[in-house]
Amino acid sequence: MPRTFTQIPLTRPNTPLLDSINRPADLRRLPAAQLGPLADELREYLLYAVGQAGGHFGAGLGVVELTIALHYLYNTPDDRLVWDVGHQCYPHKILTGRREGLLNIRQQDGLSGFPKRSESEYDTFGVGHSSTSISAALGMALGAEMAGSDRRAVAIIGDGAMTAGQAFEALSHAAHTRSNLLVVLNDNNMSISHNVGGLANYFARVWASKSYIALREGGKKVLSAMPAAWDFVRRTEESMKNMVSPDMLFESIGFNYIGPIDGHNIEELVRTLRNMQHLEGPQLLHVYTTKGKGFAQAELDPVGYHAINKIEPKPKVQVAVPAKPKSPKYQEIFGRWLCDMAARDPRLVGITPAMCEGSGMVEFSQRFADRYHDVAICEQHAVTLAAGLACEKQKPVVAIYSTFLQRGYDQLIHDVALQDLDVTFALDRAGLVGEDGATHGGVFDLAYLRTVPNMVIAAPSDENECRQLLYSAYQHNGPAAVRYPRGTGPGVATEETMTALPLGQSRTLQTGKDVAILAFGALTPAAQEAGKALNATVIDMRWVKPLDRDAIMAAAAQHRLLVTVEDHQLMGGAGSAVNELLLQEGVQIPVLNLALPDHFIHHGKRDALLAQAGLDSASIERRIRERLDSQASLREAP
Amino acid sequence: MPRTFTQIPLTRPNTPLLDSINRPADLRRLPAAQLGPLADELREYLLYAVGQAGGHFGAGLGVVELTIALHYLYNTPDDRLVWDVGHQCYPHKILTGRREGLLNIRQQDGLSGFPKRSESEYDTFGVGHSSTSISAALGMALGAEMAGSDRRAVAIIGDGAMTAGQAFEALSHAAHTRSNLLVVLNDNNMSISHNVGGLANYFARVWASKSYIALREGGKKVLSAMPAAWDFVRRTEESMKNMVSPDMLFESIGFNYIGPIDGHNIEELVRTLRNMQHLEGPQLLHVYTTKGKGFAQAELDPVGYHAINKIEPKPKVQVAVPAKPKSPKYQEIFGRWLCDMAARDPRLVGITPAMCEGSGMVEFSQRFADRYHDVAICEQHAVTLAAGLACEKQKPVVAIYSTFLQRGYDQLIHDVALQDLDVTFALDRAGLVGEDGATHGGVFDLAYLRTVPNMVIAAPSDENECRQLLYSAYQHNGPAAVRYPRGTGPGVATEETMTALPLGQSRTLQTGKDVAILAFGALTPAAQEAGKALNATVIDMRWVKPLDRDAIMAAAAQHRLLVTVEDHQLMGGAGSAVNELLLQEGVQIPVLNLALPDHFIHHGKRDALLAQAGLDSASIERRIRERLDSQASLREAP
Repeated sequence: MPRTFTQIPLTRPNTPLLDSINRPADLRRLPAAQLGPLADELREYLLYAVGQAGGHFGAGLGVVELTIALHYLYNTPDDRLVWDVGHQCYPHKILTGRREGLLNIRQQDGLSGFPKRSESEYDTFGVGHSSTSISAALGMALGAEMAGSDRRAVAIIGDGAMTAGQAFEALSHAAHTRSNLLVVLNDNNMSISHNVGGLANYFARVWASKSYIALREGGKKVLSAMPAAWDFVRRTEESMKNMVSPDMLFESIGFNYIGPIDGHNIEELVRTLRNMQHLEGPQLLHVYTTKGKGFAQAELDPVGYHAINKIEPKPKVQVAVPAKPKSPKYQEIFGRWLCDMAARDPRLVGITPAMCEGSGMVEFSQRFADRYHDVAICEQHAVTLAAGLACEKQKPVVAIYSTFLQRGYDQLIHDVALQDLDVTFALDRAGLVGEDGATHGGVFDLAYLRTVPNMVIAAPSDENECRQLLYSAYQHNGPAAVRYPRGTGPGVATEETMTALPLGQSRTLQTGKDVAILAFGALTPAAQEAGKALNATVIDMRWVKPLDRDAIMAAAAQHRLLVTVEDHQLMGGAGSAVNELLLQEGVQIPVLNLALPDHFIHHGKRDALLAQAGLDSASIERRIRERLDSQASLREAP
Repeated sequence: MPRTFTQIPLTRPNTPLLDSINRPADLRRLPAAQLGPLADELREYLLYAVGQAGGHFGAGLGVVELTIALHYLYNTPDDRLVWDVGHQCYPHKILTGRREGLLNIRQQDGLSGFPKRSESEYDTFGVGHSSTSISAALGMALGAEMAGSDRRAVAIIGDGAMTAGQAFEALSHAAHTRSNLLVVLNDNNMSISHNVGGLANYFARVWASKSYIALREGGKKVLSAMPAAWDFVRRTEESMKNMVSPDMLFESIGFNYIGPIDGHNIEELVRTLRNMQHLEGPQLLHVYTTKGKGFAQAELDPVGYHAINKIEPKPKVQVAVPAKPKSPKYQEIFGRWLCDMAARDPRLVGITPAMCEGSGMVEFSQRFADRYHDVAICEQHAVTLAAGLACEKQKPVVAIYSTFLQRGYDQLIHDVALQDLDVTFALDRAGLVGEDGATHGGVFDLAYLRTVPNMVIAAPSDENECRQLLYSAYQHNGPAAVRYPRGTGPGVATEETMTALPLGQSRTLQTGKDVAILAFGALTPAAQEAGKALNATVIDMRWVKPLDRDAIMAAAAQHRLLVTVEDHQLMGGAGSAVNELLLQEGVQIPVLNLALPDHFIHHGKRDALLAQAGLDSASIERRIRERLDSQASLREAP
């Protein structure tokens, strides 16, 4: 059984066995008896490395044995391992030639926090959003069949990710194709009851314990008051008419089900996987693991230890630094607004697809439990459910990350906007997200939302604007989205009073000459700083749809250059909306659209990434000056 | 048992019982013994009405008894019935005050072919895309709970629609909430085996018989060579290791399962529904029905009779009309290209989410059966599956309606574009679709696709361009989409030879003065006609991304007005892309963006709808003249 650690090593541990493994082929030369000691070394190194770099923590600890067993038995990279979501990929990265790289994970130009095809041939598929692994692995299995290859495809998916509809779609299709596909269900939900096969309804159990809540949370440590799920599980079990085992679900879909087995018993894992390896047709192996396994504190608090920050060395001399008041994150602004609004309006319903902590809904979920719905990783369902509630004149607020609303896009168009239903979307983590990288960027929402009729879209520029625009969107009787970034804003104090800001009305922050900067959302402070240096007019546009037509026309009449600024792709974004308006009105004025370029932006510090994209205040100023210069030279030309 | 008809009545049948029912309350006053005779009258009237108006056929015939039973027992509209997809809503419309309206169904200003909230209080939820009903009905059930109401919510969903992930998400959540929700599984797949409850794996059966293929097809009669599914079903059954009954699947999710019962036995239906009506918690009633029930020909050929055209009266005098050669639909152009390409490239794989006939893939599915994947109504899975295949250097072509790709949007961004994988999207039914209305319009794709890095997007202007651009997109090593409309084009003959057209290169159709029209896709012929009248330059842009920068810059330099034309929302569309380019390049020229307005366009004839939107050739010409006039008057102003 694995060794249990109680401390994160601050100096590099001694790992001679691990150091001898530079690729899985090295691993496959070890005698089976050495796999257990290797697991201990790998776990200790993982603790050390994540302590040094910060990053996802519990998921990797939980699959140390599984990762070793899979690389030991499968001929990677020729055989394909697809890790769902990917938080658990650190042991995989360590065993596949990236042991040292782990010390720079999630840092700019360092390793990605997720599997990434461009990083290694062992990373067969980029993940990050959940529940795609079975589809991708099935595609690989079918591709191998076409090529006449007998390589194998394995999807490793957690119990939380299994709740999403796409996983079900893929299981159902795989059962139909009868392809040679192994799905490993990594169930870290109920590890205590290893031996209770037919314990209870599989999904009731998943729902009840809600282990999925931390599945896709970002990089920061999640502070959470996780309610003891156990009582609830027991109550649910007792109330259930039928006690069925998980095998029934998967067998009824058409998979050959084997398990559950203990995912930390490496001998049992190797033996079972070896037996299954050459079975024909779709196979499901159900493995129980413990999130955070082998680190005592994480086993006790798996949500809290989903990810950790880098451990900073203690300063040698303690200097008394005056405590700087910490400004709240946008997520806290949203959570507070949601509670205030719910206290005032009994029709408010809060919906999250498995992002309670991340979205700032913990207090709401406790104070308004009967109006709180965590629907698991089911964005499609979340959006249509909200539409159904709106049909009954309730007032649903869907709190969803911008990147995950991409999964509910059809439902937003078809079920909400087309029927002009009163649903408010709190669009979290809009713009660049930093360390989580391109898979989590919320940089397409303005384009995909504003093309849809009936949509109203707000982009607050600071904390108070966020609170007031959430209120305004909520008061609007129809579909509305408020997009705000990850983390903290400029630190503007929020007014307790909620005031409905008129739709499509901007506010002018300063009046200057020659240049008018139309700023949308989170980059407004940077735009304002640039505007000061340039003596430009700066307008906080507040709304992307509808636009403030009058303000834009007036700005066009009084300046010789309009500049739009936003943290979104240039193509189809807010600047593009301004262009459309001006040309439709027949106004001829130079416009400079400052926004994200037409390529994916990878992980790094958000501020650094914005600066690289030319969207920090210095770059904004510089780019405006350059445009003014080129306009001047154009005028001087013959 | 229901009466069986062998003819579609051409004159209005005598239906005294039906005529007495102007709302469900009238129905609820009937003695139970009259429900059978009412079903016969309703079925006969339905045959007559669809014969007069054309429209969806088999689905409605299959639910005559179910519709009567539900309205008889539930207190509609206070109780909520949500019909999934909605093709089966005609009997519901007849019983809810729209008997006469059915004679104008799907015609402009007539009834919608789908349930529509704005049309009737009995239409509780707009449907059209599949698999949303359980989510919506659950929202209504939760809303009723919040309001302290004991109204009931019922979702009626077909076996095909049940394959989509969202249905599974909603079932799973409903089981968790324990809400009072009834899901009626309308299983018209295996009606022959009414009494074989534990016959076979539910999903294997659904997959094998593929009844879902016609589920979402458009309004035209589908000519199909449906292979006899029965042999395959039997073979699948025999090969299956485990024989499990459908109740296991639903019970394992957490539903109380009752059934299967005969959905054409109205007494059994009423009795069972009455017994279930006051059960607490989520209930699933499994009902077997026959698509096309009561019309002999339709029972034999349910796919062929999915929908029918209006029956035209025979002309009194037969006039010899010279046969006009029928030009092929874009769907046939695609189907032929797909076969030609597959014959040439063994790596090509064709994928459709349940739209084999509609997408023109019947021949491909027969000739290249081993490289053909109908993945059922699983758009999310379809896209990621393609990504998995592309990882193995196969060449997947995903044939998907523009409106349904909205369901795979996240997968397109995250799994295909971000990894720059070589997947070709044949984007069918782009633009307005006519009689199917707003739920099926493909009018957002350019906005939601072009904002995504790595995407290449083509918009062919005629049949040959379609063939050549499909080839060009396929040759491009990366994600590419080719969007084309529903139905026929201008009738340009296709060249057998396939030629790769350079990315981002337009072709000039005519050179004129003052005005340059940049036409994108299907409206190019209309633009060209307007261009002739105006002596304007007309450019077939071919590519929306990348744009032909040089051609646009040259056009801007040589004309005094640029006009963009497209069948897509103005916001974020191809014209918007041209605006972005011009302003980025610092070019000052008036631009007129002609595209769809910022509201949903409802059903009607496609040509009429385009004319109303100002996008027929006469409107294009008029709108350009108006803009030229206003520019002239601007110049003359002081």
